[in-house]
Amino acid sequence: MAEDERVLLAHGSGGRLSHELVAQVFVPPWENPILSRLDDSAVFRLGDGTEPPLAFTTDSYVVKPLFFKGGDIGRLAVCGTVNDLAMSGARPLYLSAGFVIEEGLTMTDLRAIVQSMREAAEEAGVQIVAGDTKVVEKGSADGLFINTAGLGLLRSGLHISGEGAQVGDIVILSGSIGDHGIAVLSQREGLDFESPVSSDVAPLNHMVAAMLEVSPQIHVLRDPTRGGVATSLNEIAGQSSVGIHIREETIPLKPGVWAACEMLGLDPLYVANEGKLVAMVSRADADKVLEAVRGSTYGREAAIIGEVIPEPQGKVLMETAVGGTRIVHMLVGEMLPRIC
Amino acid sequence: MAEDERVLLAHGSGGRLSHELVAQVFVPPWENPILSRLDDSAVFRLGDGTEPPLAFTTDSYVVKPLFFKGGDIGRLAVCGTVNDLAMSGARPLYLSAGFVIEEGLTMTDLRAIVQSMREAAEEAGVQIVAGDTKVVEKGSADGLFINTAGLGLLRSGLHISGEGAQVGDIVILSGSIGDHGIAVLSQREGLDFESPVSSDVAPLNHMVAAMLEVSPQIHVLRDPTRGGVATSLNEIAGQSSVGIHIREETIPLKPGVWAACEMLGLDPLYVANEGKLVAMVSRADADKVLEAVRGSTYGREAAIIGEVIPEPQGKVLMETAVGGTRIVHMLVGEMLPRIC
Repeated sequence: MAEDERVLLAHGSGGRLSHELVAQVFVPPWENPILSRLDDSAVFRLGDGTEPPLAFTTDSYVVKPLFFKGGDIGRLAVCGTVNDLAMSGARPLYLSAGFVIEEGLTMTDLRAIVQSMREAAEEAGVQIVAGDTKVVEKGSADGLFINTAGLGLLRSGLHISGEGAQVGDIVILSGSIGDHGIAVLSQREGLDFESPVSSDVAPLNHMVAAMLEVSPQIHVLRDPTRGGVATSLNEIAGQSSVGIHIREETIPLKPGVWAACEMLGLDPLYVANEGKLVAMVSRADADKVLEAVRGSTYGREAAIIGEVIPEPQGKVLMETAVGGTRIVHMLVGEMLPRIC
Repeated sequence: MAEDERVLLAHGSGGRLSHELVAQVFVPPWENPILSRLDDSAVFRLGDGTEPPLAFTTDSYVVKPLFFKGGDIGRLAVCGTVNDLAMSGARPLYLSAGFVIEEGLTMTDLRAIVQSMREAAEEAGVQIVAGDTKVVEKGSADGLFINTAGLGLLRSGLHISGEGAQVGDIVILSGSIGDHGIAVLSQREGLDFESPVSSDVAPLNHMVAAMLEVSPQIHVLRDPTRGGVATSLNEIAGQSSVGIHIREETIPLKPGVWAACEMLGLDPLYVANEGKLVAMVSRADADKVLEAVRGSTYGREAAIIGEVIPEPQGKVLMETAVGGTRIVHMLVGEMLPRIC
């Protein structure tokens, strides 16, 4: 990365350039053992080290537009951070919320978003305990950006990490893909599809709790947001030094999302989700974990979509619906800016 | 607040409109006992309640320009959040960092800011353990906004809160006022003063640790950032239902800040500080606490500037240099937008 380079939209895609930016610009100066794991949450113990571990995470939300079918930036800001905590196996407890508001935002919109955060927090069972508001001049931001940071408590004995996938593990996906990205894009571009798509934005912590109830030995959990399922699986394959084999025909996809992706030339594997997770669990535990996911509010369409294989390390292979096998790469470039 | 109202710059001032926005729009829907104390940090206990309390806080930084004499947005984002934790008496431990970057920011600037955060974190003795980067299109943000959230550990037995001021308490100010605001404003407006002013942006946690070492019974700590010393003292007077009496001639003020304020028609009592604190302590402890502040890196010019009085409740009175007494109100309107 030359020193006269500039930050591009693609650096925020969640795909390859995002990973390079983090690896080259942020991690070397900030290097520490907690940060360097690069999971969805930082996990550490306070005090003398005998107390239960905590999970801590942050995300900024810049979705455009602020309101879309199935949600808004407020619901997104609560659920996204709750889900990052849940993906470490933690029970989310407390959130902070930092607002950067563009002068001129209507109080009606602001109140609706604050109320939406309250409802999402109630649903997830978390409290918003700290906040901050900054206002910038008209033209210096785009309506509203929200940052939420979250704090959760881990049960001792869990070892959930992107580094934990083991050869033979079964890959579970909690439901249909691409709903959030297509819902936001449709709203933004004023597209009308025959079957309108709603965002899946939802808190997944209750689903994760049900999964851990039946199997505390879950190896990997990740919510495939920016960059979609393809990018999350590539991250895990890389972190765990394994291959991942998935079957296209097993991946749940709503007809409306399929139609929108066909029309727009998008691959749903790269489209953002905000209420889905992928899990990797031992073959022995797969059925009961799948059953737990299907029994939860947001997991009724869950499916087994593949398994962890020894080779090729760091790669994701997909058996396509027509019978071939192709490599599924990490997202390159920026497909859908400002999707979350 | 009528529903067709819009957010104004003054809602981000830290002054009266900021307080109204928080009290009217955010607190009612999010109501919970931790949030509602409205101190610089949320304080709570995890687990079964026997473990030491934690402090948790967040702030977004939108300072313009990104670099100014004495600091940059990165140093500000670390110190500001470290200081909010320190003001609860907590030992700051972990930070998260969320970046919203405008497409086109140079990698050179980004690297300099990330490096500056590392140095400030080292100085404060904290680790940045979680991060997030979003990129928005050119024109949708102004260079870079940073949110940091912070987590710290409290010693049991401390009761530091804006509600804790007691009649008879002595008011200590850790040094000269207005340095940060004037430094940023000078940089932004291209003003050249005879004695150029540097921002005071600095981590105050080591100062607070030294103060607690000599007096664990400190009643109030607050860092007078947006809205300045005047606004912080008004907040405390309101939260504690007391009056505060200060003497103008005891308040440290650098000649360059004085000159700039004279020229620009600003009252330094309302100008932001980023490396100063006000403390309220019992008369018995005042001398040893003052000595501890003066013995720390950023407190050499500390002074006793007043005391807590029974009446008028919720008001700040100042004995002026010319001998009169006036009421010092909370900041009204927006004097210096985007100062932090």
